[in-house]
Amino acid sequence: MNGYSIGIDLGGTNLRVASISTEGVEIDRVAVPAHYASGPGRVLDDIVTALERVRRSTKKTLTGIGIGVPGYIDSKAGVVVSAANLPGFEDFPVRDELQRRLDTPVVIENDANAAALGEMWMGAGSSVRDLILITLGTGIGGGVVHDGRILSGAMGLAGEIGHMTVYPDGNPCGCGNYGCLEKHASASAIAAMGKMLNLGSANVTAAEVHQLALEGNERAMQVFESMGRALGVALSSLISVFNFPLYLLTGGPLPAWDFFAPAMLGEVRKRSYTYRRFGARIEKAVLGADAGLFGAAYLPQQRAVQAEATVSVG
Amino acid sequence: MNGYSIGIDLGGTNLRVASISTEGVEIDRVAVPAHYASGPGRVLDDIVTALERVRRSTKKTLTGIGIGVPGYIDSKAGVVVSAANLPGFEDFPVRDELQRRLDTPVVIENDANAAALGEMWMGAGSSVRDLILITLGTGIGGGVVHDGRILSGAMGLAGEIGHMTVYPDGNPCGCGNYGCLEKHASASAIAAMGKMLNLGSANVTAAEVHQLALEGNERAMQVFESMGRALGVALSSLISVFNFPLYLLTGGPLPAWDFFAPAMLGEVRKRSYTYRRFGARIEKAVLGADAGLFGAAYLPQQRAVQAEATVSVG
Repeated sequence: MNGYSIGIDLGGTNLRVASISTEGVEIDRVAVPAHYASGPGRVLDDIVTALERVRRSTKKTLTGIGIGVPGYIDSKAGVVVSAANLPGFEDFPVRDELQRRLDTPVVIENDANAAALGEMWMGAGSSVRDLILITLGTGIGGGVVHDGRILSGAMGLAGEIGHMTVYPDGNPCGCGNYGCLEKHASASAIAAMGKMLNLGSANVTAAEVHQLALEGNERAMQVFESMGRALGVALSSLISVFNFPLYLLTGGPLPAWDFFAPAMLGEVRKRSYTYRRFGARIEKAVLGADAGLFGAAYLPQQRAVQAEATVSVG
Repeated sequence: MNGYSIGIDLGGTNLRVASISTEGVEIDRVAVPAHYASGPGRVLDDIVTALERVRRSTKKTLTGIGIGVPGYIDSKAGVVVSAANLPGFEDFPVRDELQRRLDTPVVIENDANAAALGEMWMGAGSSVRDLILITLGTGIGGGVVHDGRILSGAMGLAGEIGHMTVYPDGNPCGCGNYGCLEKHASASAIAAMGKMLNLGSANVTAAEVHQLALEGNERAMQVFESMGRALGVALSSLISVFNFPLYLLTGGPLPAWDFFAPAMLGEVRKRSYTYRRFGARIEKAVLGADAGLFGAAYLPQQRAVQAEATVSVG
């Protein structure tokens, strides 16, 4: 194959664009400052400019473009249903507008879903076709890959692992629920627990709580044990429902793995008969922030293969 | 199409066999007393005898046979991994042995998974391709259908909805966990709660608790509210993770719907942003005990279509 595709990540402070061969080898990448607040017109201009730069650096054939967007995405319709950090994008026809301007197939997808697909394609999940990725950040997101494809759900909202209820009377969540996983195991939750225990400054961060744990602070270690147990409750339910071979964690708190993983795995072992009898891999993701770029780039390649198969069946 | 397939249900006190056309119309059915305790040899003889009776009643072409089995099934390998009520079946090559004796394709599957597929094919889910079925019985089972196919998981153990943790410090479960959904919302859980409240006799059943609720007994109503809330906690997590359009309930306690559904739906509304904003159907299944027969019959039809498509792609 002498083709390639382009992945775009609209998360973070930069808009990132990478060209990746059909074999999964990165050819080139560009990061430009993001002007998300300026609305879709400006963001699309930035995308087109960045794309021209990476297109010039290869003579391979472009299969298409995939875009990972932080928000609720209707991938089938190609529109952003809702995205807190992208004002003006709601119901804007991102896909169709970009296809028109670039004359190549465009796929848009939720960024956590794209990251899960990226880990399957070129990351920690390359040996399986079924996995769940849990992204630990300000909140907790996630993506489910089943039989090699993103499980999108009716509105593209599947994979909201962070809003699973782990403690029915737990911490209140902005979504209206109590005890959502993300209120007990995200980077923000780690920081909030650190603050409750008077660790560090008034604005203590998850990284600072981790540093304190490294220094032997037992209350800091308690925070990660609590976080790990919450993750374990959610993971044991996911294992009961999916029986997938692989569950991956990624995000800012990942370096604190040694502090939260024992409690997490202990909880899973206690709660899941399936895990005790048949096992499952619960591991660190490996692509970090690039998972979304790889997954986004894989989307149009996957579509192209699917379209060929459909044509052959006729 | 002038074809048909045969569905077999190994649950219950009878071994049930039904021939069903490719259009989903039942042609004939036979129920024979089950000799599960006598081991696989006797059960396979019974299956072959019953099959001969239903095969005689049609001149259509047989596509294959599907069998729903209560237990852990490795559908790909065609073996029963573990089934409490089927002694001697563990690791017995049910599929291959039946294929040899009957000279037709055989598929085996967990019975709750088969029931979920049956509801999609000819039941309450005929308008969708993604649904979850929750079966309320002595325990709670379930099946997940994604994109028209059973989500099996690594070992065919997916859909164990009953072992989702709804209350991390809840009732102890035989699986080793605490607060499994089935310990708070199954028919057995309803009976146990009725007993705690001194309702009916010492051996009060879920049906008797329902009867008391119908007579206006407030404690009996409390039992169903408690059961409904537990279901709501699990459903809201499922909606966050799957974002499917349809969730179906079936099983013995279904007639008590009016007593548990308000608490269940209230809990989902409170806990799920996705449900409040985008909705989801949470409804009664319609095929009852026949869902597994229809789903089992659909399995070989689905395999046949898939095989044709694969051959065409070449």
